Amino acid sequence: MCVEGCHKAVQKAIARREFIETAAGVVAGATLGANVIEDATAAPRNFTKAIDLTHTLNKEFPTYGGTENYVELEKIYTIEHDGYLMYKWHITEHVGTHLDAPAHFSPEGNSCEEIDVETLVTPLAVINVKTQAALNSDYQVSIADIEAWENVHGRLPDHCCVAMNSGWSDHLGTDKFRNEDSQGSLHFPGFSIEAAEFLRDKRNVNGIAVDTLSLDYGPSIDFSVHVAWLLSNRWGLEAVANLDDVPPIGATLVVGSPKIENATGGPARLIALI
Amino acid sequence: MCVEGCHKAVQKAIARREFIETAAGVVAGATLGANVIEDATAAPRNFTKAIDLTHTLNKEFPTYGGTENYVELEKIYTIEHDGYLMYKWHITEHVGTHLDAPAHFSPEGNSCEEIDVETLVTPLAVINVKTQAALNSDYQVSIADIEAWENVHGRLPDHCCVAMNSGWSDHLGTDKFRNEDSQGSLHFPGFSIEAAEFLRDKRNVNGIAVDTLSLDYGPSIDFSVHVAWLLSNRWGLEAVANLDDVPPIGATLVVGSPKIENATGGPARLIALI
Repeated sequence: MCVEGCHKAVQKAIARREFIETAAGVVAGATLGANVIEDATAAPRNFTKAIDLTHTLNKEFPTYGGTENYVELEKIYTIEHDGYLMYKWHITEHVGTHLDAPAHFSPEGNSCEEIDVETLVTPLAVINVKTQAALNSDYQVSIADIEAWENVHGRLPDHCCVAMNSGWSDHLGTDKFRNEDSQGSLHFPGFSIEAAEFLRDKRNVNGIAVDTLSLDYGPSIDFSVHVAWLLSNRWGLEAVANLDDVPPIGATLVVGSPKIENATGGPARLIALI
Repeated sequence: MCVEGCHKAVQKAIARREFIETAAGVVAGATLGANVIEDATAAPRNFTKAIDLTHTLNKEFPTYGGTENYVELEKIYTIEHDGYLMYKWHITEHVGTHLDAPAHFSPEGNSCEEIDVETLVTPLAVINVKTQAALNSDYQVSIADIEAWENVHGRLPDHCCVAMNSGWSDHLGTDKFRNEDSQGSLHFPGFSIEAAEFLRDKRNVNGIAVDTLSLDYGPSIDFSVHVAWLLSNRWGLEAVANLDDVPPIGATLVVGSPKIENATGGPARLIALI
């Protein structure tokens, strides 16, 4: 299997490598997106560094519904009595930095073990909306944000993951991460339905990712982005960490998602290679 | 952070790429190990394909102790009633293709969330002992096996993962995978204590991996390999899948291990990049 980013979206010249100047600094990488050649032979992707895009999960990790007891570790063996330590996990699968499999909303959609591994190794495009989100907790990534990104970095590469960096992970550990108002409505950024439909219909995107608790913005009452996205049999990622540490384009995301039969998602280890 | 394999073990000539002829065929890769340069600048690692080294986990997956109920998915929300499907997992953490964190045996060792991500992206060296294991279910990987591998492929690269390919994953779904005798002793291959100590003391290795249910061979009564390895604060991988699909050297293993606080291991998504 050829990894995503090698199928059809390849560098114009395989031997040509560039240094991409990013907001985060100068990062070694290969230009993708701007110079797409359809049906070219696969080009190698390369990296020198690994960045962890995963939050540590524990029982204090905030949940969308505010529910407690999403994560419990029951000690069942101990080094003192048994020679080794072992826990039984009791985990509600949509918690922490985690995958939404299509089956979460789609009766016909793939559950975790059915997602092709080739789609889990993917070029990562990061759209920075921190300024907008700082002014409006209910900010929704728009088509205009995507177009502005493409004006700078070129067309989104085929089979990529598009991540929203709203800066919201800075609020983890404070009430602002869920940002619940007195009526019980949450307030944090997400993708707009128009942007989700644009990525689904006008671009070739494997997955979308957010640094908040939901692909939909906090006040959503209909999960319209979840519905539009997951029913197209694509995956999503929520509560992604450390998006400030990766460039807008050039990283490869490896989605270390659980391969548990019938699971509709679950805590995932996300590692970006740059 | 520079990924393992880029720290000190780098290609002799960065620009030079070779095709490595392997038992599995001709695989594009970069020579590592044979031409180690200490303290050279980091070299990019590259890949064009992703190989899934993870078995699908379900409640039928065999366990070391033969215990049932290691994996239960409790349905807590349904699309019909709630708009989405969601399970609560009840999972004993050492099941399926999974990580052994040092804390599994070592009171001072790292638990899952404490393992540096840079050690989870690592050159993969695969030692094939299928012929030996076919003749002897209790086969243990020896120092001689490691030396024979190095005679062909060069010295094990620094910070690599060394995997035993005993062919045992072919027995998954049959009683031979656990291979329990009438006295309750199991019979499958693993690392010998001498090989584990050699890798720990004479080479620079991040982790060891097996395609069986234990780092120790089946009849072990003292878990000596677990003790020797995990107490050195290194990790292990058990029940690895598809090792026939990766070359003896040249792949990069990405260990998508859970980042759950205090966990002593757990189901991991293993993806090899070649």
